[in-house]
Amino acid sequence: MEKVNLKSINLKKKLIKIFKKFGLSNDHASISADALINAELVGAYGHGLSRLKMYCDRISKGVINPKPKIKIKKISKSISHIDADNSIGFVAADIAIKTAIQNAKKTGIGMVAVKNSGHYGLSGYYAEQAVKKNLITMIYTNAPPAVAPHGALKSLFGTNPICFGTPTGSKVPFILDTSISMINRGKIRVAAINNKKIPKGVALNKFGRPTTNAKKALEGVQLPIAGFRGSGLAWMIDILSGVLTGGNHAGRVKDPFDDFSGPQNIGHLFITFKTNLFVKNYNTRIKDNIRRIKRLPKIKGVKEIMYPGQNKYKRFKMNTKKKIKISKIIEKDFEILKH
Amino acid sequence: MEKVNLKSINLKKKLIKIFKKFGLSNDHASISADALINAELVGAYGHGLSRLKMYCDRISKGVINPKPKIKIKKISKSISHIDADNSIGFVAADIAIKTAIQNAKKTGIGMVAVKNSGHYGLSGYYAEQAVKKNLITMIYTNAPPAVAPHGALKSLFGTNPICFGTPTGSKVPFILDTSISMINRGKIRVAAINNKKIPKGVALNKFGRPTTNAKKALEGVQLPIAGFRGSGLAWMIDILSGVLTGGNHAGRVKDPFDDFSGPQNIGHLFITFKTNLFVKNYNTRIKDNIRRIKRLPKIKGVKEIMYPGQNKYKRFKMNTKKKIKISKIIEKDFEILKH
Repeated sequence: MEKVNLKSINLKKKLIKIFKKFGLSNDHASISADALINAELVGAYGHGLSRLKMYCDRISKGVINPKPKIKIKKISKSISHIDADNSIGFVAADIAIKTAIQNAKKTGIGMVAVKNSGHYGLSGYYAEQAVKKNLITMIYTNAPPAVAPHGALKSLFGTNPICFGTPTGSKVPFILDTSISMINRGKIRVAAINNKKIPKGVALNKFGRPTTNAKKALEGVQLPIAGFRGSGLAWMIDILSGVLTGGNHAGRVKDPFDDFSGPQNIGHLFITFKTNLFVKNYNTRIKDNIRRIKRLPKIKGVKEIMYPGQNKYKRFKMNTKKKIKISKIIEKDFEILKH
Repeated sequence: MEKVNLKSINLKKKLIKIFKKFGLSNDHASISADALINAELVGAYGHGLSRLKMYCDRISKGVINPKPKIKIKKISKSISHIDADNSIGFVAADIAIKTAIQNAKKTGIGMVAVKNSGHYGLSGYYAEQAVKKNLITMIYTNAPPAVAPHGALKSLFGTNPICFGTPTGSKVPFILDTSISMINRGKIRVAAINNKKIPKGVALNKFGRPTTNAKKALEGVQLPIAGFRGSGLAWMIDILSGVLTGGNHAGRVKDPFDDFSGPQNIGHLFITFKTNLFVKNYNTRIKDNIRRIKRLPKIKGVKEIMYPGQNKYKRFKMNTKKKIKISKIIEKDFEILKH
């Protein structure tokens, strides 16, 4: 494959064709293609095209349902519950965030829980949708075991991201999308594929000893941020997205790459609310907030204090313009999946 | 003062008498006394009796309003906005959590924002109230500048706790109440009073250099957990509790000990919701969750994997039984405040 422009219609068409070949409807294929391309555009390669083959493999093996009957149950005007029927996660999350947006627009606050879903890529991608509709959002999802609870010798929590998004009164949204592990599992996976080392202090091997070898880290345990605090946050997210929603929890979410013994049944929780519930001038207030923080004296070498989401937006803008070389491994995946 | 039983009526009476002397109503004095005693009982001494004099000083200097006209504005059946009229924070938070509980009981979800409040002690104390009513809760508050944003050389964020509570199907609630700073500011304050050192790597002095001297750390900068991730979480909390609510934000919350130039106008946000919105057997599910995690193989020397709130509950139980010696400094405060 040659260098491609990620925003090119050709790439999207190619992805849609592959997903449809594996049984997805045109709509679901398009939603999934958009999510993968977006991950590449923001530079989150661990959540982008490198996962295409995994999704297709899971459909082939019957653990992602290409023709899900997704049920949306209204609990109240603000609250909805979605049974995603083991759809590809992108589709479940797309419906969920749209429902959460609708609920918040009607009542001021929306809460949508999802069960029987799968890996949906980047939480920030869905947060952006709510922020574009001028809402604040908090999004939680669990994930397969990767991080050991504080005091334990075995992984159980996923890298469970905390995601928060808010309008900023400018075109660049504030999107915090931070894993509670020292390092993103996707990044370790990419490092393992490319035979690169990972930083010190982020993972242990399967014997509980520190390692910088990405492959050994994948067999071992990732460390949570800030010891018992990060462990507590990961536990909170497992409760909010798993215990509460009816999804899997407590380490039962299957690894999408390695475990084809059944669907993942990941749970997600989406909370959305209006910015003007309590103040009339939210945009002015948040602009002032950001301006004051950016004006602080900086550590030597720091040019600008960036808010969460700003760097990602810059990468997005840059990557929409230039052509990108797709790695040989992904090129090979494309070839396999086409036929 | 001799050793006292913290649960003794005498101690509470003494505190109520002092607060009333400073102009609080009997109700408000009682709420405030309960909060201070609870902090001592759970071993959070930085939020307990060591703060009594500060509260009284702020009332004397007119920056806490002892006779507030607190307004509760109904935004919807789920959502309320409280203008605390610069009340002592305990009272504002007490009304807020009770309102959030009522709203959630009626509609499934409650959201209460507070502005013009002050330091309210421990978020976990209010979370416990919601959990006792069988609700899940998330609580955010900002605080005076203590932590530098990632890349900045100056403190701006408070130690801004993230608080999450849930029933566990047992009498010991799951209460995560974790500051996003490496160390609780109250602990540094107690260390400074007692001339004790603080751990390495948690704070910088006013010149931006690492320090283990508690007094120098108070003049300097506390470090956030996990670098830019912790900084992002602190920023999120400043937005949720300050920008959104109408409270102070972006470093404008005054230090309650050092700055008597005006009220703090701290903002808080309380979110509460029912456990059975999406599943009928929440208690069974969370019991199973905790059981599975506790059963994991443990790191050498770890007897039990504890969930957040468990240690605090143990301390609470222990401290309700035994008598505790009150420090000379607090004893002196009592003497000053009585007269």
